Amino acid sequence: MRIVLFGTGNLATRLGIALKSANAGIIQVFGRNAEGASKLSSILGCPYTTSVKEIDADADFYIIAISDDAISELLSGVKVDNQIVVHTSGSVQMDVLSSFAENYGVLYPLQTLSAQREAGLKDVPLCIEANNSSTLEKIKALAGTISGNVVSIDSERRRQLHLAAVFVCNFVNHFYSIGEVLLKDQQLDFDLLKPLIRETAAKVLQFSPSSVQTGPAVRGNEAVLAMHMKMLEEYPEWKHLYELISKDISHHHN
Amino acid sequence: MRIVLFGTGNLATRLGIALKSANAGIIQVFGRNAEGASKLSSILGCPYTTSVKEIDADADFYIIAISDDAISELLSGVKVDNQIVVHTSGSVQMDVLSSFAENYGVLYPLQTLSAQREAGLKDVPLCIEANNSSTLEKIKALAGTISGNVVSIDSERRRQLHLAAVFVCNFVNHFYSIGEVLLKDQQLDFDLLKPLIRETAAKVLQFSPSSVQTGPAVRGNEAVLAMHMKMLEEYPEWKHLYELISKDISHHHN
Repeated sequence: MRIVLFGTGNLATRLGIALKSANAGIIQVFGRNAEGASKLSSILGCPYTTSVKEIDADADFYIIAISDDAISELLSGVKVDNQIVVHTSGSVQMDVLSSFAENYGVLYPLQTLSAQREAGLKDVPLCIEANNSSTLEKIKALAGTISGNVVSIDSERRRQLHLAAVFVCNFVNHFYSIGEVLLKDQQLDFDLLKPLIRETAAKVLQFSPSSVQTGPAVRGNEAVLAMHMKMLEEYPEWKHLYELISKDISHHHN
Repeated sequence: MRIVLFGTGNLATRLGIALKSANAGIIQVFGRNAEGASKLSSILGCPYTTSVKEIDADADFYIIAISDDAISELLSGVKVDNQIVVHTSGSVQMDVLSSFAENYGVLYPLQTLSAQREAGLKDVPLCIEANNSSTLEKIKALAGTISGNVVSIDSERRRQLHLAAVFVCNFVNHFYSIGEVLLKDQQLDFDLLKPLIRETAAKVLQFSPSSVQTGPAVRGNEAVLAMHMKMLEEYPEWKHLYELISKDISHHHN
């Protein structure tokens, strides 16, 4: 397998490392930024280029792991014959690739990736899609080398999955940040919340989240709700969120 | 140590089991509801009563693990001399106990407890407070038998900790529920989100949540934000939350 990897960010880095560990051959890294491309190419032990014209034409897969809005512009300069082009985005329709390749598809890892933290992809759902069945089989085989959790999902459902991921990951992480700020205000250490954060996540790996909802909103404890609203006077945005989410919890459960 | 435990809910059950495992002697369970009190007393291997008048006067500790708004009413019927009375609430001031006992305090386990899931208390922060230093020492000794994470925290800071817990646990769990509903709408299995939920929590055990924020809002990806808003047309409350939280993320990071 000969792969050209486009991109030098967190996703490109994690995918590149996973593919390399699986002995898939990454023959070239492309990145607009020479420093990033050079760094990733040295991690992966392959050459890099910053020029679309120098992209290796002799690959089996072109994997696009760059920001959503740059995909079309980048591809307009890339020439492929019948090789496979895949993008890795949760929210971009597969068909944006139709004018650039005959065989194309998607390989979307449903995970949050940060530069600070090495995260393997072995149990991460890799959501795949392709414009024909032989391409789907090839993408499935490639994805199967890096994760045991490969699922065929069309663009519409992938988009919905990505929206759900914003709630359960991005918004959740922001609420962790709010917790951290509220604790700092009282000289309390964020570490105090960690067993709670861990248990809250662990519970829903085992039970439906609706069935394990706790707290003043689901109990209808109006005195605590009113007290919390008052405590949030200094944070009008969070006060507003507190009110809306508490109402939504109450509505969802009653 | 001779303990009377008030309450038969999740918190009373978990505390009772942890105290029993630590060989603290629970001599009686009190519960208004005979069925609940009988069930917990058989788990703990001690007698129970549903009558305030029958509460054993010969205990060292009276631990109140009942709903916040029932504490004062319950205690008005209980007679104690110099024994220690503690409540276990995150949001109730310690001083509600001042008219019922000479020695009193708080033992608040910062954890989410559901009937379905057995959760140990060994690493759970037990936030303690007392109205005098000898009582604090006794509560600390008792708490230390069930958790390695005992911290002295006054009522004001405990209240703030509880508010933060609502964000990082109750609201987070509600967002897991929203994710589950969004997936069901497209016949997608909630299991797909589990590796993401686990990793999102695991990241903040290691790094400050602000430093590992990901997603369209922090990237300023307006096209995805607009698309998600459109996809949420059917859920006006969630659309509104999506907009407010995305703005708050953007504001927090820029």
